[in-house]
Parts: sequence; structure tokens; C-alpha cells
Amino acid sequence: MPQFTPIAWGAGHSVRILDQTTLPLTEQYRDLTTAAEVAEAIRSLRVRGAPLIGIAAAMGVATELARQPAAGLEVVRKACQVLGATRPTAVNLHWALGRVQRRAQAAAAAGQDLLDAVVAEADAIHEEDRVMCARIGELGAELLGDDSIVCTICNAGSLATGGIGTALAPVYVAHEAGRRPRVVVPETRPLLQGSRLTAWELSRSGVSCTVIADGMIASRLRRGDVRCVIVGADRIAANGDVANKIGTYGLALAARAHDIPFYVAAPSSTIDLATPDGSRIPIEERARDEVARLGDRSLAPEGVPVWNPAFDVTPASLIAGIITDQGLLAPSEIGSAAAVATTAARK
Amino acid sequence: MPQFTPIAWGAGHSVRILDQTTLPLTEQYRDLTTAAEVAEAIRSLRVRGAPLIGIAAAMGVATELARQPAAGLEVVRKACQVLGATRPTAVNLHWALGRVQRRAQAAAAAGQDLLDAVVAEADAIHEEDRVMCARIGELGAELLGDDSIVCTICNAGSLATGGIGTALAPVYVAHEAGRRPRVVVPETRPLLQGSRLTAWELSRSGVSCTVIADGMIASRLRRGDVRCVIVGADRIAANGDVANKIGTYGLALAARAHDIPFYVAAPSSTIDLATPDGSRIPIEERARDEVARLGDRSLAPEGVPVWNPAFDVTPASLIAGIITDQGLLAPSEIGSAAAVATTAARK
Repeated sequence: MPQFTPIAWGAGHSVRILDQTTLPLTEQYRDLTTAAEVAEAIRSLRVRGAPLIGIAAAMGVATELARQPAAGLEVVRKACQVLGATRPTAVNLHWALGRVQRRAQAAAAAGQDLLDAVVAEADAIHEEDRVMCARIGELGAELLGDDSIVCTICNAGSLATGGIGTALAPVYVAHEAGRRPRVVVPETRPLLQGSRLTAWELSRSGVSCTVIADGMIASRLRRGDVRCVIVGADRIAANGDVANKIGTYGLALAARAHDIPFYVAAPSSTIDLATPDGSRIPIEERARDEVARLGDRSLAPEGVPVWNPAFDVTPASLIAGIITDQGLLAPSEIGSAAAVATTAARK
Repeated sequence: MPQFTPIAWGAGHSVRILDQTTLPLTEQYRDLTTAAEVAEAIRSLRVRGAPLIGIAAAMGVATELARQPAAGLEVVRKACQVLGATRPTAVNLHWALGRVQRRAQAAAAAGQDLLDAVVAEADAIHEEDRVMCARIGELGAELLGDDSIVCTICNAGSLATGGIGTALAPVYVAHEAGRRPRVVVPETRPLLQGSRLTAWELSRSGVSCTVIADGMIASRLRRGDVRCVIVGADRIAANGDVANKIGTYGLALAARAHDIPFYVAAPSSTIDLATPDGSRIPIEERARDEVARLGDRSLAPEGVPVWNPAFDVTPASLIAGIITDQGLLAPSEIGSAAAVATTAARK
């Protein structure tokens, strides 16, 4: 299992993060001491992954509150606003901030310590995510045989969650059981979360993996030895459509063309019943330079336009199953299953 | 139409190339004075594109022969060997070298000047390619309406041929006719021939284009406004299967999923009747660092394996038509059509 901590409390309610923008070259930790710093870290992808940004945002509210505890609910409200405006697609962010806000309101109404309450809620979100990841790992591992080759995309591992990941959790559980899974890792342009992050955490955990460019996915699946595809999710709509890292939809089409089952792995906090289908999921468009530059190197002629959506939507019809903490669900079952989870999670 | 020359004679039968590895930042020309230098330029992709490496190789034989004209056919034979060993997939290379060798043998048998004969054959190959590109452009432009959006991959333009390109030729002809075509340009990892080369030559020619990462292709096609996909080819097998830049197969799957016609544009010199189907086309695998590094920047953890095939094979069943100098052919017509062309071209 992975032996690093992508997020933790630092001194005085600061948020200590592993900066994911400098991996795999440098394993650098940063202490964030304001909600604005946490928001910057989320926006610039120092902290990323739908479940992890939910946790980070919840902790960021506590960080801000610790600086000015006397200001009370107004600080919580403003911090939630700042943190909620960072990224539009992953629903976990808003889900976590909603939980924190409700908990703070309840604490204020009951005359309890506000900071204690917000810290406790952030810790609960983190711990629940850890448990959901473990459950996803157990369920998903049943889909793998011995020596299975799994294809994923982006990073939906320990670096993206409060536990052993979502898409990678089944791989870690199978590996722990001595079943030698191997992972095909598309690099995931433009920001290379596959080659930089997934390859890093898998190799640190002793799991075999091979990096490919994104354009190689269809050829790799055609070879016939990939048992299944497992990807994470940033938002799952009520009809089972799934928003995830750009490239996921093309991967799903290639999997379908080769009769390879395509699974989505996600905690209940990623399911959004308020979004009826994928067409309603807001897709973040990011800056031109993420595609047109790498470091200080220009990869495209000056002035040429770039289209850079960070996510795409995979229709439910291409998904064999959604591995959640509630079980392996058909996309069509998401509507009812999520209702239970959302209600339960919201307390 | 493009206003630059990717290959030309330099002083004293040297081969002057536009070095495609430094584009779009630097427009640098190099004079290559031995067959070994031309071979290095082909291997390192300073000169690339199936038709252009055929031309470069033919010119490289003349360059070597000019250094030691007295050595005669033996020099031609050795130069063809060195140049033919550079890259395995594009058939134009072997086709062009075969033509040069036969012409040299005929000249020697007839007591003609060997260097003159080899130069003349290289010039003929270049000129025929220019004409074939123009014809492909005319035929392909008929497939485009006004303001059509075309998606391609890699670079099959002026930089890849002796003329106005293959896949891009219809775009240039339509643009010249005032029909304002626009091009979606996948960056084409690992070596970024899309963002570095296609975007460069299109924008220099005043054609609108937008660069996307390869993982965005399926989402872009889903938007419904792309009229067709046109790609080049490195080898077309007798059954109509097509080897082209890695990523082409995934693009073809995405086009099929969205009912967008997928065309291949190639001169007759790319058709290889000796290869019955795509499974027999040798696929070059290139170095790990093309994927794992960019310049001096490491993109993946040290020691993690990479799979880096330079080409993939798109089955004939996904191809709406093959735009050749002989006409717009169904993939199933390649077998008979090519026989004519190959015979004619080989004289």
C-alpha cells in the first residue's frame, strides 16, 4: 500500500500538502495557512483528485477559521465561497463544503466551539473517504484475476483521495494479496497526471506499470491482454453518465471497440443526484499554456488557439459498472443508490 | 499555399533540409553532405513524413555518389543500404530507394553518367510527389464544403511531402479557393508533430487551426461540427488497412462512434501490394525518452517502463475512402488500383 500522505494537518491548523505539481522530480510538502492559499493550491493542481480536493477544502475552512476564530460563521461562509469557486466540475468539493457549513451552523446553534466542529467535520470527511477507498478496493479486486493488466487514465490513486485511491484501490488490494496486477498508464496530457503521478505512486508501492502516450491507448487495448479499464470520476450524474479527466471518453470508446469492460470507481461523495445527466455537468476549461507550453518550452506556434477542457463525459451506455463503497452498481442503479448515500452522508 | 521548402539541393549535391526537430521555435536549414548524415536526419526525424523521407533518401544516394563518383554502383548499393535501414514502417522509403537503384543499374548498363541518372531519378520522385499532392488536394477538396472543419493527426502537410501535403492538401486547395476551411490539430504525442509542425505550416499559410491534446479528440468530434477526418499514411496494405502515426486508430474509432467520415490521403508510393494486410506492417518502436522526457525535463519516474510504438494500424473497415492521385478509392479497391500505380511508377 502507498506510504505517503498527500494531505495532513500541519502546525496550528495549517494544511500540509504534498505539492503534486513538482512530482515525480521533487517530493515537496507545503504548509498552507489561509483559505486563499488552499484555494490557490486547488486551482493550480498542487492538490487534485475529486475526493482529495473535497478534503482539502474542508480543511481549508478550518485553517481560515483558526486565524480569526472570533469572526465565527461569517468566516466559514466566506471561506466556503473562496474554496467553492476554485474548480467547477468535481462535485466532491461542493459536497464537502456543504457538510462543513451545515456542521458549523449546527455547532453555532448549539453553542459549541466552531473550530472544533469544523475540524471534526473535515476529519470525518477524510476518514470516511479512507474507508470508502478501502471498500472500493475490496470490491474492485474481485474483478481482477491473477496477473491482470488494468488500464486507467490520469491519477485516481492515493494522491487523489484520503485513502488508497478509487481506480487504483482494486490494484493495491490485489497487489497486497500477492496477485501481481500490472497497470497500463496513459500519460494524460496536458498535465501528465498519469506519467508524473500514477506511475510515481504505483512504482513506489512496487506495482508494475508501463507508461504510454494517450494516442497509444487504442493500440494497447487492441493487443487483447488488458483485462479491464478502471478510471476515477469527478462527478457521476443521476443517469450514470460520468465526468472524468479529459481522455476518459476516448478510452471508453476504445474499450468498447475491443470488448474490454470499462469500470468507474468512485466514492458516494462523487455522485450528484442534482445533475440529471452528463450534459448538465459544467466542464472546466483551463489555460492555453497547459497545452501550448511545458515549463518554459513552447510546444505550439505563438498565437495559435488551443482548446483545453479539463474533463469529458462518458455516457452510461459505455460503462460496465460503477464500483462504489455501496457496491458494484450498474450505471442505471446510480439514481436510487446515490439517494441513500447522499442522504446518509449529509446527516 | 505553403511558402517554404522542406527539402532542396544545396551546394555540390548536398541535401538542404529544414530541420523539423527545432520547429516551431527555429526555422533552421541544414546541408547534409553524406548518406550517413541523411540517414541520421531521417532517423532523428529532422526530415519526416512518408513521402518526404522517400525523396530525402533518393537525394541522399546522389549526395553520397557525388563524394566518390568513381566507385559507381557499389556506392549506390551501400548508400541504399544505409538509408533503407533508418525506419521500417513507411514504405515510400524503400520504394524510392528501389527506383534509384534500378535507374542507376540501367544507367550503368547503358554507359550513362551515374550521378546524372541518380539526380534525375531523385528529381523525378520529388516532382511526381508534388503532382500527386496537388491531385490529392483537388480530389479531397471536393469532400469539403464552405467553412468545413477538418480533423487530422500528426503532420501530413507540406512538411511531410514534396508538395502541398496529403491530408492537408485538400485544406490548402479549399483555402486557396476562398472556402475558409478550419483544422482541428491534435498535438500528436510524443513528438508533437501536430502542435509543432501542422499548426506551424497552417498558420503560416493563413489557415485557421486549433490545437488540442490527443485525449481531447473524442470530445471534440462529439461536438458535431467536424465535417470529416483526413489523415496521411505511412503504408497502405493490399486490403486497405493503413499504418499511420500512433493515435490514428483511436481517432478512427472516435470518428466512427460519431458517424464522421474518416479519410486517408496518400500518394501511390505509399501503397504496398506486397503487404497483404495491416498485421504484416512492421511497426517501429522508438526510444523510451521520447515519452519519458521533453528536452531536459523528466516526465515520468526514473526506471518506469514506457511503450512507444511510432505507428498504429487502422483497419480498412473504419475507412470511408482513400484519397490518392488515382482518385478517391474505397479501401477494397486498393489492391487493383495500386497494381497499376506500382507498375507505372516502377517503369
